[in-house]
Amino acid sequence: MKKAEKTRLKIIEQSAELFNRKGFAGTSVKDIMEETGLSKGALYSHFTKGKEEIALTAFRHAVGVVYDAVGRRTRVIESSVDKLKAVIYYYRENIFTPPVEGGCPIQNTSVDANDGNPVLKSEVVKALTDWQERIIHTLNKGIESGEIRADIDKEQFAVFYIGAIEGGILMARAHDDDKYFDIMAKQILGRIEEIKV
Amino acid sequence: MKKAEKTRLKIIEQSAELFNRKGFAGTSVKDIMEETGLSKGALYSHFTKGKEEIALTAFRHAVGVVYDAVGRRTRVIESSVDKLKAVIYYYRENIFTPPVEGGCPIQNTSVDANDGNPVLKSEVVKALTDWQERIIHTLNKGIESGEIRADIDKEQFAVFYIGAIEGGILMARAHDDDKYFDIMAKQILGRIEEIKV
Repeated sequence: MKKAEKTRLKIIEQSAELFNRKGFAGTSVKDIMEETGLSKGALYSHFTKGKEEIALTAFRHAVGVVYDAVGRRTRVIESSVDKLKAVIYYYRENIFTPPVEGGCPIQNTSVDANDGNPVLKSEVVKALTDWQERIIHTLNKGIESGEIRADIDKEQFAVFYIGAIEGGILMARAHDDDKYFDIMAKQILGRIEEIKV
Repeated sequence: MKKAEKTRLKIIEQSAELFNRKGFAGTSVKDIMEETGLSKGALYSHFTKGKEEIALTAFRHAVGVVYDAVGRRTRVIESSVDKLKAVIYYYRENIFTPPVEGGCPIQNTSVDANDGNPVLKSEVVKALTDWQERIIHTLNKGIESGEIRADIDKEQFAVFYIGAIEGGILMARAHDDDKYFDIMAKQILGRIEEIKV
């Protein structure tokens, strides 16, 4: 990797954690300068549009890091039902040790971007929609293989799956107690049993 | 109301909306000065500890406003089952017109306070715990009256109820589409049917 690419990646990685912990409004260009040890000029030479461009790139990076981490866990699993369960177990294990410090970037950025940052908000919608499509893809595979019932409402399943994970993360991280995620996980695992053939 | 009390209430009400929309880190004392039209000195004469004290008081106020709004809807309802349903309908109707601008203060402050503000965080835990206790109180009333099964796990029900509402609000507000809340609501209403005698 060239030096410029390395610097760019370092900015992205370090600001991804900053934005994920402190939010868009709570993270200043000065914070990014301090974290990366770079001057304002150096930051702007990589991201000419400044903080908004860094935040957008950092969010995409953070979502990618989470997807990769989940993907490493589920890639080897053949069964669609087991894949859906493995994602729940992955989140369960990593609530307090998330791949991007600060927790779920979709949750953090969603709450953060709802009031005031339309570019970041549309990126959150994209990430949520991507996630939903991945779940529906897994459901389709399971229907094809005869593991999952063909008559289920796939959108409803996927939305519930995501919503219950996000609600569980929110409560577990607020209370500092994974018991709260477990209760949501139990309901999702119950739904998975219901869609099995 | 005395003039000083009026001013104090105005600071609390206006900063509750600011903090709820922009978060703790994203709201500066300058923002509060601009919103209220008060000087820094005037703000500090009411809140000697500054921004943190304002944020804490504003959060308590915001949670109180939501509880009052929900309470006005449910107070007249005798049946515990109908009370539990009415809260879901209330949230459904008010996702985009919440009583405190910016959405659910528990959700916003929880995500915001997880990384960095221990005082605000402990207040979020208190609000979540209070909510859980109110649900358990309603369940107990329903068990006493013979409406709700006595053998249910009340804590599990209450945590799922809160988590599914919060997950639903998060997705609906991100997508700007109440369909996402409806899907979570359907699951909660299904759980309510399961606990009925």
